[in-house]
Parts: sequence; structure tokens; C-alpha cells
Amino acid sequence: MERNALKSHLKNMLGPDKVLTEDLDLLYYSYDSSFLTKLQMVSPDVVVLPRSTEDVQKVMQFAFEHRIPVTPRGAGTGETGGSAPLSGGIVLDLSAWDEIVEVDAANMQVTVRPGVIHSDLNDHLAAYNMFFPPDPGSSKMCTIGGMVANNASGLRAVKYGCTEQYVLGLEVVLPDGRVITTGGMKSKAIKNVSGLNLTKLFVGSEGVLGVITRIRLRCFPKPKSRGIVMAVFDNLDDAPATVLEVYREGILPSGIEILDSSAIRAVNAFKPHINLPDAEAILLFEVDGNPPSVEWEGTTIVKIAEKRARQVEWSTEPKRMAALWEGRSVTAAAAARVRPDGSRIFAGEDIAVPLSGVAEALRRIRALGEKHGIQVVNYGHIGDGNVHTAPVIDPENPAEVEKVMELVHDIHLLAIELQGTTTGEHGVGAVRREYARLEHGPAVDVMQSIKKALDPYNIMNPGKLF
Amino acid sequence: MERNALKSHLKNMLGPDKVLTEDLDLLYYSYDSSFLTKLQMVSPDVVVLPRSTEDVQKVMQFAFEHRIPVTPRGAGTGETGGSAPLSGGIVLDLSAWDEIVEVDAANMQVTVRPGVIHSDLNDHLAAYNMFFPPDPGSSKMCTIGGMVANNASGLRAVKYGCTEQYVLGLEVVLPDGRVITTGGMKSKAIKNVSGLNLTKLFVGSEGVLGVITRIRLRCFPKPKSRGIVMAVFDNLDDAPATVLEVYREGILPSGIEILDSSAIRAVNAFKPHINLPDAEAILLFEVDGNPPSVEWEGTTIVKIAEKRARQVEWSTEPKRMAALWEGRSVTAAAAARVRPDGSRIFAGEDIAVPLSGVAEALRRIRALGEKHGIQVVNYGHIGDGNVHTAPVIDPENPAEVEKVMELVHDIHLLAIELQGTTTGEHGVGAVRREYARLEHGPAVDVMQSIKKALDPYNIMNPGKLF
Repeated sequence: MERNALKSHLKNMLGPDKVLTEDLDLLYYSYDSSFLTKLQMVSPDVVVLPRSTEDVQKVMQFAFEHRIPVTPRGAGTGETGGSAPLSGGIVLDLSAWDEIVEVDAANMQVTVRPGVIHSDLNDHLAAYNMFFPPDPGSSKMCTIGGMVANNASGLRAVKYGCTEQYVLGLEVVLPDGRVITTGGMKSKAIKNVSGLNLTKLFVGSEGVLGVITRIRLRCFPKPKSRGIVMAVFDNLDDAPATVLEVYREGILPSGIEILDSSAIRAVNAFKPHINLPDAEAILLFEVDGNPPSVEWEGTTIVKIAEKRARQVEWSTEPKRMAALWEGRSVTAAAAARVRPDGSRIFAGEDIAVPLSGVAEALRRIRALGEKHGIQVVNYGHIGDGNVHTAPVIDPENPAEVEKVMELVHDIHLLAIELQGTTTGEHGVGAVRREYARLEHGPAVDVMQSIKKALDPYNIMNPGKLF
Repeated sequence: MERNALKSHLKNMLGPDKVLTEDLDLLYYSYDSSFLTKLQMVSPDVVVLPRSTEDVQKVMQFAFEHRIPVTPRGAGTGETGGSAPLSGGIVLDLSAWDEIVEVDAANMQVTVRPGVIHSDLNDHLAAYNMFFPPDPGSSKMCTIGGMVANNASGLRAVKYGCTEQYVLGLEVVLPDGRVITTGGMKSKAIKNVSGLNLTKLFVGSEGVLGVITRIRLRCFPKPKSRGIVMAVFDNLDDAPATVLEVYREGILPSGIEILDSSAIRAVNAFKPHINLPDAEAILLFEVDGNPPSVEWEGTTIVKIAEKRARQVEWSTEPKRMAALWEGRSVTAAAAARVRPDGSRIFAGEDIAVPLSGVAEALRRIRALGEKHGIQVVNYGHIGDGNVHTAPVIDPENPAEVEKVMELVHDIHLLAIELQGTTTGEHGVGAVRREYARLEHGPAVDVMQSIKKALDPYNIMNPGKLF
């Protein structure tokens, strides 16, 4: 359909307030936080801001009839081009549809529309002494809809798992405009094994199967107490060995983070007052629970870490905990400043490997950086083997761009070689689809046949996932 | 295909040792633990005992070509007719294929073939101080393959979730004989968001999408300590109110069980020495974790329960814990003996409702029992709203059979009315498929289109799920 006709059709259908058509507005929807979408910006033909399931339904029926690509979008904090409208068409911006429909404290659950921001939800749930445990770095910006579409996780996945573990049911508008409710039409059950588990199929489906318009989440009771252990290692292999011994002692910390030597240097250069010890690796453990449990777990981790670490510290005092965590909390910002003329780019940033392969992964990523002449900063969620790599380049320099793309490719191949995955939590989007077959083999055919069964004309977020 | 030709084809293909053809052998495969399959026994035409992925692949290619129904089966402990070969054809008995392929303690995971028995797996993992948390009542009999196919749970789901939470990857033979690996071809990652989540789609799919031939499970570190609280209530509503207050205090017990008055009477009649207090409800809380945490949680639950309960007791002493738990552990057996001429049947036995609806569900199930003149015994996993109802009848009496089927239907409708589900953990199988549309509405169409995409000739476990 011709672009102007499309715009006026949608304005007539939904009213002018819900439709954006100006070039400058559209430009904003051509990128997310990925490096790819900074290189190749494609504007949508039109942006729709739905405020009801009916709005989404009308758009999808229209798009289905006219075979127009539709790309759902939350806050655009994704790092994979997942919400970039690579084939133009319609972007559905769900971020303003941010209603908390119901907190059902008696049944430990909450129902929201997709645009609710993660930290807003947890602020709201705090009054009921509940929380939604997954804790992405983008908490203050990212939407629950985006978290569900990407099966997001973050700092607390070791103990609390990923978003999928909390999704009890979804309302989804299918590519042809039909509306379904997964997990039971009117259900508020917490446990339910009736039928195929469509809920978990849509979680992490990155917008290629339908538009998520309502989300029912299980909440957990808020832990009363937390504590932080910091351990400093001269030998990189001692870090995963310590993590494993902590698990063997029966402890699942709420988070286990690692900064390797590259991240330690970046943090100290960025904020000299933090003054992290010069070392091969720093581990940060967060434990939470009831007060005596936190005390026991913290002191037990200290004892285990002391076998291998040069320096160990432990605190449950809020100011000291914040100080211990400060190095980790500025790592992403610090990585962006390791070169005065450079920028940190988001690419090859999310591999996950088995715990036994983390030290090798870090060493080989640093070696790959040297091979390609690209500076890298490594940190991540070591507890689940999820390594975040920040390559730092001058993005205006085509030679560096070419080199970094080779580096990123090598990092993705390394992840698969080490029995890991190209993405632990950020998703595939447009940037990792080329690895689908290598990672999943013939399972990709099954993914594609499910896609085809629900979206025969490939209008839902085309060009993503596989 | 003619039955004798089928038998000889399979014997030639796999060797005679892997194929059962005698009527008496086949009869054994006509039923599971459901009441339905005791009423309507359908023998398969032939039973195959595969011992390799290739065996399963050969059978599926053959069955696909000749459009022969195939029903996978584990230990046959299911209560829904899920493994009953309702259309005849081939039963794949996977129970003897019980290899623990690899314990990867360094990465907290284990890979098994489908026939491994649940309690055997946990015995094996104990040497590594790990465990696979889901804890079904049939632990000593049921297979891991069956648990995955049914997304089983049991006593520990409140804190530890269901089987799906631990399944990292599967090898599946599709209806046409193709073999796929979900969760990454060679992956040992614990966190992985690459591609559509086929793993979770196959978990709980009850054999209608393919045959599960290898399972990679995440394990958790074994908690060091446990404790039991028993609380006795004169008012049924006080039981869920106490559970909710325990959650609000930040505690997730590993299990929370309820016996209502019907179960208390049944236990005391069956084993008078247990001598449970005569009451409207008894709650049993199990807490686990590190020793000071268990102590804190146990004593905190005692304080909360004492606000409403007539009697509360708490112990971490193994003998006393076993005594407190004994009433719950004999409930299923006790239910079978409430009438000298009666048997407990498995039907309408697994509804789950929101916690706020548990008391009403128990009251109305008892009233429905009275209305239909059928004695019922109620117990279950109150922490996740999962109520197990045991109707006791003389199964040889057609009038009682007719009445109980009406009761079971009313219980299923009640579950949906109370915003619950007809099945919290046992599955749909053949016995609850009639409720699929009522429970899921148009989502059933999506389930069916996925089924059709993978199994165009409907040969995989036909007559189940929807």
C-alpha cells in the first residue's frame, strides 16, 4: 500500500492522536540500542500508539489484509535491532499503554498492559511487600512487554530465573487480528498444566508471533534482607571455581557478577575514587532472604572465597554495600570511556557459556580483541555464565567498524564452540539470526513452521530471530 | 496396516527383543492410573521398547509413512489416560531406556534418557550434593520423560516451581522421524534466549508433538536443612489466610499441604495411631534452606499460625518431622479405604484455583459430593491452590459410576468458575480434553494449528489434550 494512503487509513481508523506520520517522529523509531541500527537506519512508514486491545486488533486485521509488516516496540532499549522496522511498514509503539490493570495481592499476582516500566512496577508492588524478581540493567526504562517479548533477566537470574518463570498468562493479538488469552481465559491459577504451553512459547518470541497486549505475572514476597560479598582474585580461573564451590555448599546467591581485568581498569580510569584493586577478576555476590539466612550465606561465601581470593569483604550495611557494588554499577558507563575518541557499541555483547567455560571465554575474547586490534571490556552475570563484552571503537571510522564486525562474529562462534549460546538474555533480533542454524540445527525448521502456522504472510516483525 | 503385518514389520526392523506382540503383554499397555482407562481399555496393536534415538526414529518414519497412531509411555503412573493408546497402533514404552547419560556437576546439570525414575535420579545426584527439585507423589515409580511430558510438579512447587523450570534442552523425534535438539544443539548454557522456546513448548505437551528421547536438566544445590510446621484450624478459611500471611512475611516454604476434615477423618480411620486432631483443616508447612534460615522461617510461621490456629507444632528433628508428615503421606492410601466396599478413583482429582478460592473450592466440592451421594476426600498443595479430590465409589456399580462422572464434571466446571483450571499438575490426557475450549477459548485453535504444523496426519498420541 502506498505510504500516504496507509497513513490516512490508519488516522481514519484510530483517530489522528494515535498515529505518527512526520518524518522526524518516524526517524526516532528507526533504531534501538544496537550498533546495527545505527549503521542501517530504516524508518517505518507510520507509527501507531495503541491504547486498547481493540486498537491493536484493528491494526493487525488491516495489516493482515494488506500484507503490511508490523513491528511491536516497547522502550527501544533492546540491543539486537529487535524492534527496528527493517521492512518499513507499521511500528506499534506500546510504551505509552502503561496501565497496571490489577494487583491481586491475595493471589500474589499482577496484571499489566505492555507499556509499564519495570522499576515503576516494582515500586508499585512494594506497597504489597511483593516484587517481580527479574532485574534488567535497563530497569528504569524498559517495559514489561519488552521484557516478556525478550524473556529478559539480568542480575538476579541465578536464584530467581528469567522473566518466563513469572509469566502466568498473556493476551495476544495474532497476526490476523484474532485475540487469544494464554494460561486460561479467566484463570488466576498459579499452577496450570492444561493444554500446550502457549504462554512460554510467546515469551521470548521477540514479536514474530503476535502482539502481547496484557500480561499476568506471578510475584514473589519481598526478601527482608540482603548482603554483598566482594572477592578479589589474582588468577582468573579461581573466580568460577569459587562460584561452583558456593553452589556446592547449597547456596544460590541472588546475583553473582564478575569484572575481569579489562573492566577493573575501565572502572578505575572512569571513576578513580572507586579505586578497585588491580586484579585478574573481582566477584560480587548478592545474597538475599531472611536476616539470619543472609548472615549465614554471606559469612559462608567469605570462608569459601578466602581459600582462593587475595582480598574478601562482606557487608549488610546499605552504604558499604552500595560502595562495594559501585564498580559494577558504573561498568557499562566506564566501558564507553576507555578511549577519548571511542564509543562502546552493543554487538557481540551477550554470549552465555557453561560456568566451566567462563574463564576460557574471557581469556579468548581478550585475545580476539587483540587479534582484531579492538579494545574490549568484559563483565557479566558469571553465576549463569552470561558474559557481557563491550567493544570500544570509533564508529565513524569504517576500518574500525569492519574490524569490530569480524571480532563480533568470532565472539559468537566462540560462544557456540564453548557449548554456549550467542545470547543469554538480550535476544536474537536482527543481529544474531545468522547463527540460528549453527546453534539450533534442524530445530530452526520447527520454529519456522510454527511461525508460518501463525503468521502465513510473514508480516509480524519480519527479518528477525531466524 | 493389518495388525500381523505391523508386528512383523517392526520385529524385522528392530529385532524381536524390542517388540511385544502377545495379547497379555498388550493388555498391560491399555491403561494407566486413571479411572477412564479402567472403564474403556483399548490395547495397542504392538508395543516397542526403544533403546536408542535411532530406534524411535525408525518407528516414527514407519508410522508416519503408514499413518499409524503412536503413543509414548513412561511408567504409566498418569491419571488422565495420557499414555493410553485410544486408537490402537504402536505404544512406545520408554521406561526401560533409563540411562543417566552425564552428570555435569561443574555446570549444575544432568542429561538423562526418558526412562530414568525420579527417585533414582535424585539418589544419583545426592553424591554431588545436587537435586532435581520437583517432587511428585509417584517419585519412586514415575519417569523423568513422563514428568517432562506432563510438566509434573508435586509437593515442592511453591518454592521450586514445576518440571519446566529445570528443563534446559530436549532431544525430540518428530512425528515424521526428524530429530531435533531444543535449547541449542550442543549447548550446556544455563541461560539461553536464542530462538523460539521449543523446549518449553514440548514440556507438558503430553506426547502430542513428538517423542522426547533425551533431557538436559538444571539441578539445584541440595539445601542443608529442613523443618516442618503443623497447624490445626477450626475454621477452614483460616488456613488460606495463614498461608497468605506467611507469603507476606517474605517466606516461600518448600511445600504447603492441606488436609480438610474429610481427609483428617480418612487418615484416622485408616491409621488410628496417627490420631490427627479433629478439625476443619490441618496445614503442613515444609521449609528448607540453611540451618539458621530454616529456624527463622519455622519459628516465624509458628507465630503467624498461632494467630488463628488451635494448635501449632514445629520441628527440625527427623523422627518428629516424619510423624507430623505421616498424616499427609498416608492420605492417598487412606482415601482408598473410607468404604470397605469402595475404591478411590482418579478422576476430577487435580483442580487448581487461586489461593483466595481454596476454602470455597473445598466447601463446594464437599457439597457436590453430598449432592451426588459420593464420598470425597480432599487434600492437596494449598500453597499453589492445587486441590486433590479423591471420590470413593464401588466401581462395579454402574449407578455409582454414573453419579461419580456427574460429580467429576461438576468439579471441573467449578474449577473454571472459581478462576482456576481443571488440572494443576496431572495434565489433560483423554479425560479433560472436553474442557479445553471452555478453559482456553480461541487459544485452542492456536494449539491445534501448532499440532497440525508438526503432526499433519495426527499420528502422535491422538485423542488427547484438545
